[in-house]
Amino acid sequence: MSIPAEKVRERLHALRSRMEKKHIQTVILWDPDNQYYFSGFKAISYSRPIVYWIYEQQTAYIIPELEDLHAEENAYTDSFHVYHERYNKGSNDTSFLDPFIRLLQNLPSDTRIGVEYEVMPAYVYQAVLDHGHDVVDIGEDIIDLRSVKDEEEIKWLDEAGRLSDVALDASFRHLKTGMSELEFDSYGDQAFLQAASEKYPEVVVGYENWTCSGIRRSAMPHLHSSTRTFESGDPVVHSRQVWINGYRAENERTFLFKDQATEEQKKLLKLAVDAQQAGMQAVKPGVRACDVDLAAYEVIKEAGFEDYIDHRIGHGLGLSEHEEPYLRFDNERILKEGMVYTIEPGIYVPGVGGFRHSDTVIVTADGSRSITHYPRSYEEMLIE
Amino acid sequence: MSIPAEKVRERLHALRSRMEKKHIQTVILWDPDNQYYFSGFKAISYSRPIVYWIYEQQTAYIIPELEDLHAEENAYTDSFHVYHERYNKGSNDTSFLDPFIRLLQNLPSDTRIGVEYEVMPAYVYQAVLDHGHDVVDIGEDIIDLRSVKDEEEIKWLDEAGRLSDVALDASFRHLKTGMSELEFDSYGDQAFLQAASEKYPEVVVGYENWTCSGIRRSAMPHLHSSTRTFESGDPVVHSRQVWINGYRAENERTFLFKDQATEEQKKLLKLAVDAQQAGMQAVKPGVRACDVDLAAYEVIKEAGFEDYIDHRIGHGLGLSEHEEPYLRFDNERILKEGMVYTIEPGIYVPGVGGFRHSDTVIVTADGSRSITHYPRSYEEMLIE
Repeated sequence: MSIPAEKVRERLHALRSRMEKKHIQTVILWDPDNQYYFSGFKAISYSRPIVYWIYEQQTAYIIPELEDLHAEENAYTDSFHVYHERYNKGSNDTSFLDPFIRLLQNLPSDTRIGVEYEVMPAYVYQAVLDHGHDVVDIGEDIIDLRSVKDEEEIKWLDEAGRLSDVALDASFRHLKTGMSELEFDSYGDQAFLQAASEKYPEVVVGYENWTCSGIRRSAMPHLHSSTRTFESGDPVVHSRQVWINGYRAENERTFLFKDQATEEQKKLLKLAVDAQQAGMQAVKPGVRACDVDLAAYEVIKEAGFEDYIDHRIGHGLGLSEHEEPYLRFDNERILKEGMVYTIEPGIYVPGVGGFRHSDTVIVTADGSRSITHYPRSYEEMLIE
Repeated sequence: MSIPAEKVRERLHALRSRMEKKHIQTVILWDPDNQYYFSGFKAISYSRPIVYWIYEQQTAYIIPELEDLHAEENAYTDSFHVYHERYNKGSNDTSFLDPFIRLLQNLPSDTRIGVEYEVMPAYVYQAVLDHGHDVVDIGEDIIDLRSVKDEEEIKWLDEAGRLSDVALDASFRHLKTGMSELEFDSYGDQAFLQAASEKYPEVVVGYENWTCSGIRRSAMPHLHSSTRTFESGDPVVHSRQVWINGYRAENERTFLFKDQATEEQKKLLKLAVDAQQAGMQAVKPGVRACDVDLAAYEVIKEAGFEDYIDHRIGHGLGLSEHEEPYLRFDNERILKEGMVYTIEPGIYVPGVGGFRHSDTVIVTADGSRSITHYPRSYEEMLIE
């Protein structure tokens, strides 16, 4: 599955055009999502670095022996440099730095190197500097290329959206007071994993979710799910990202156990739903990122709760959890067809609760469409 | 829950002793696990950096507004510098770099700064360099401090081990041919999340797992679980990490659907089990990391399969997926009581399959004990 070879070629071609314009002869990629985008290969990498070198004509991978079969099956690359965790393996490279330094030394002395300034760790960056090369940031160009999705990527995004709906549907079908946040999540996990298994052989699927329940926890936008159990009167923010073949959809709902809920909680839930609608309607080609943020902001300000907004309205989405460009008040970047965003204005009032839906939308020729469809109306989010 | 205040004080004291010896006046921490260890606070952080500053007397946190309630509840720190994604919030800081640069500028001009060379991204490191300070690596010292676990940490490690056993037990109870890798995982997920929910209110629990089934996939040690379904004759490597309150246990089993399995597959499974036993028995205070690696290596070499070892025998474990020090052939570090390791020799033979158990062991006064207990014998890993 992975990425078709011709797409990898197209993407490398686009990157090399930018390299040429900036007089960059070599790019060294550290970020696994960037490596996947430009090679079709993505490993589970903790403590064994993988480095992808893009030259003007060729490419090369530095990989641990652990990944050699996996990389050979998936990476479109011209060469591999394998390092080992034992001698007697046909080479004395026992750290990624062994081939890394060699490749640095092999470069002509006036080489200009592009690296991801936001990702490459200090010791590797310092090693590149130590070799006297001219080092520049290639991160912005890659963000730019990755931000507009092609039809192959959109196919997988749509599928991720569909699977996230399957998950939400299953979690909501089991919803009741007395269950824990983690249990609520787990019904969705299992249902969408089964759905994915039935349809696709050997595709990589994954997910991440968290549920913040009750007045105190829901007012903190990013907490891991816990063992806390739902009670009547709880607002609950349930967040889920699902990915398939690397591409992600985000699908979040805030619901309220209505029996013990206060009028203010209901009002805020409705406000969050309305603000999200305003944000989603503002998305179209040609508008600025900040205009989308503003559309939701104005709805919230109108109701007098603008002091309880803690974050931007959304972020780009695709291969990474959060991708630039961000939909925030100070970003004047123009939206283009094929960009993908979460729309998720949040209102967090201490002592009352937190309220936020998130859907994932694709910018289309004349507006946008959501790839996540689970019901989001105020009425449907009031739970018995 | 989190970390008791006196533990945070002890750890800061130990770090400051090392700072003093190295004439370091300020440490800037970027790694979330290091931040948690020295402050009790860990956020879900994607695109909004969180930075923890440790001075000779005080500490300070740079956090996004999104995390302010969460941080105030959990972080033992002397001050917060909050940045916002909107103006009109009482400050004009709209990026973490705003307070970050200010804190850099506030340092005396001859300050020596410790940073994590393996973690801090290039652009942040460059910003520190640009201010003319003397920058050194503090990473090794932190690894050293974190590698020996105290009784509070061991309490949670034991609990993580117990929960990982609950998960494996549930997955194995449902095991049959025709189920997908993802489904197999999901039974374990759900069971241990329920078990954790029943026992602990409001504790953060999480997990990561992957299952590589069949001859081709099992021979690749690190693949995400897929939709592939189990068939008779498959060797299957099932890997799981579970964490509670930050602390992790790793629990992996290789099993074999025996009806269609070959004699060579059975032999290799038995060899992997025996090699792991040899490794586990070698763990005790005073031996070198490489001695443990060698113990398993010799068992595999004796059987003639040393060319099919792709990786070291294990890694440290605690707050992070993989922690130094590593149990590898070239590491002469001496094991001490309180260190925690995975023991997981692997044999990967193309065309036959991959074979690896992993258990998590704690070095004790006179040997070691495993915190993961799921059956691991050869006979029990042969599945009908």
